[in-house]
Amino acid sequence: MKFEIKRDELLDGLNDVMKAISQKVAIPILTGIKIEVNEKGMTMTGSDSDITICTFIPAERDGESLIKVIETGNIVLQARVFSEIVRKLPTNEVKIEIKDGFQTLIRSGKSEFKLIGSNPDDYPVLPDVKDEHSFSLPADLMKSIIRETVFAVSQQETRPILTGVQWVAENGKLSCVATDSHRLARRLTSPEEMPTDPLSIVIPGKSLQELNKILPDNNDPIEILITEQQILFKTANVLFYSRLLEGNYPDTSRLIPNENKTSVIVNGRSLLQAIDRASLLAREERNNIVRFSTDEGKVIEVSSNSPEVGNVEEMVEAINVTGEELKISFSAKYMMDALRAIDGQDVEIQFTGAMRPFILKSVNDDSILQLILPVRTY
Amino acid sequence: MKFEIKRDELLDGLNDVMKAISQKVAIPILTGIKIEVNEKGMTMTGSDSDITICTFIPAERDGESLIKVIETGNIVLQARVFSEIVRKLPTNEVKIEIKDGFQTLIRSGKSEFKLIGSNPDDYPVLPDVKDEHSFSLPADLMKSIIRETVFAVSQQETRPILTGVQWVAENGKLSCVATDSHRLARRLTSPEEMPTDPLSIVIPGKSLQELNKILPDNNDPIEILITEQQILFKTANVLFYSRLLEGNYPDTSRLIPNENKTSVIVNGRSLLQAIDRASLLAREERNNIVRFSTDEGKVIEVSSNSPEVGNVEEMVEAINVTGEELKISFSAKYMMDALRAIDGQDVEIQFTGAMRPFILKSVNDDSILQLILPVRTY
Repeated sequence: MKFEIKRDELLDGLNDVMKAISQKVAIPILTGIKIEVNEKGMTMTGSDSDITICTFIPAERDGESLIKVIETGNIVLQARVFSEIVRKLPTNEVKIEIKDGFQTLIRSGKSEFKLIGSNPDDYPVLPDVKDEHSFSLPADLMKSIIRETVFAVSQQETRPILTGVQWVAENGKLSCVATDSHRLARRLTSPEEMPTDPLSIVIPGKSLQELNKILPDNNDPIEILITEQQILFKTANVLFYSRLLEGNYPDTSRLIPNENKTSVIVNGRSLLQAIDRASLLAREERNNIVRFSTDEGKVIEVSSNSPEVGNVEEMVEAINVTGEELKISFSAKYMMDALRAIDGQDVEIQFTGAMRPFILKSVNDDSILQLILPVRTY
Repeated sequence: MKFEIKRDELLDGLNDVMKAISQKVAIPILTGIKIEVNEKGMTMTGSDSDITICTFIPAERDGESLIKVIETGNIVLQARVFSEIVRKLPTNEVKIEIKDGFQTLIRSGKSEFKLIGSNPDDYPVLPDVKDEHSFSLPADLMKSIIRETVFAVSQQETRPILTGVQWVAENGKLSCVATDSHRLARRLTSPEEMPTDPLSIVIPGKSLQELNKILPDNNDPIEILITEQQILFKTANVLFYSRLLEGNYPDTSRLIPNENKTSVIVNGRSLLQAIDRASLLAREERNNIVRFSTDEGKVIEVSSNSPEVGNVEEMVEAINVTGEELKISFSAKYMMDALRAIDGQDVEIQFTGAMRPFILKSVNDDSILQLILPVRTY
């Protein structure tokens, strides 16, 4: 293997692949990045067993030569050291060459690094994802879906299935749901392209968070291929593989109330800021609980109380309040997460009583639904 | 106590005072900020016993009213909660008022906080710093002095005196020295104003780091008052008190070699970058040691070797090399710290042999001297 490449291109590719690298892997070779160079260009692969990211740098782009391939070949290099070296190389011209055995020479300007590489044949083969189910989503839609759901996955491993986001596709609709059993986030969408057969999978939350960092901020279609244990997201130059979670995801549809006794329409941003302030004192206690109450008018009172520190009361002008008077308590964090997912729009909050789950959605749009279980304090 | 104040002014003052607040204090009241309001304005005091910071907000500045004092008074409020509240208040208009006992009402817009305050009489009195020794330094000069020395203080408490920077003023010169016994940083200056009597004090490194964050980026004179156990730095609106370290600071003058056998003049920035790259591999081992060697020409070789990972060699073009050929090894971190203190200028490095301390200084300027002890590897 012998080739010349622009440092900036190499670095862009490395930044993607590094997102799959973990120092805590059971298989030592996974602390490395596999590099494959052929006439078409350079492929780098990184993996932590759960997530695998492959990025491709073409030898030529729009007539401009990015890589000069002198000799094809493969090697595995220590990911962390290799990426730090590339980041600090003195010039944009980099020459990489395998010398005796797996020793790899990296030269740029007057710097010369010799890295002890590993045998590329020892690197695990990529998951084999046949296109049993395949469809595509625009990158920006996928980013919204991830942002609006993934925060609600469980952070605890006691029920591993809840650490993932459930994606169900049927009847022309894609439903994405996350819950940690105290709150739930759901995003519905009707993509132009759908898998041909009904589909129900659970994608690890961590994988979606990493994927989100790699997806471009445009509406490029991202091809999605699914087999029994793996999902593959394809962008122009990146392949992102994730394992799927196994097990039965709970039936969440019956958690969502169909009726309501109190409905509040309020500006999401104003409410978010009020809750944020109220939670300043709530945070001093271990629970971070705020109280929310309506009266006959259109004013909501948000308050919290921390016996050792003090209390806070804040009036929030609602756009509309209908139905029964209500006093309810809930986690400030869950409420702020939900309001952030709806992103500053006017929200409708539907309550069915102080001890029943309540839901939030945008007044403009039914596609995002957030559900929160209250806490008993009154 | 009852007054109205602009949130932005309050926040600026709080940001300074908070630098003295630590959650790990032996005296519980020091988790609070003391607030004193009189006709002239508002004073806030924070302290962790070692450092005390007082900041003053005048009732009026340049004819603009900043504080409307309705009733004078004092209170102590929980520092962390109070500063978070102020940071998040909904409007720039803040009303603060003591109600029953020490309960303190903070109002802004439609938010109302009640904080349980503490008795201001329980707050420790400020150190009494008479102007036994007093002089002044421009703020920007003081910032340079701190930046060029404080990094070299010892991080270990085994010899507490070495965790401070020694300031010695005599014969019209101020000498500031820090050493952790493996390297030394010294800054000499001849301030326009000097203490009348000779002075030798040791200021805790941590105090100087916090002071550095508060000093303005201009040449405003900072008045310095010193008594046996305390030093006080006065800016326009801030008083910064620090305790002094007690004990004998080692005599560092005889560590500094007067002659040299090899002298290298090189661009500081180029050498810094080369050392940084070489240290990428050195870091993998526990010691972070790089090698530095000269030959007959003007080229320096910087290299390091990590048997498990690989090695790196880099040629650096020197401006001049005179004297004996040299091979020496040293801590990459110490070398980078020293080069950063000299800040990208051309540096002269004077060696007196592979096992003797060597010094670095700017070719333009004798006022900064950095000394590093080498490590035996050849």
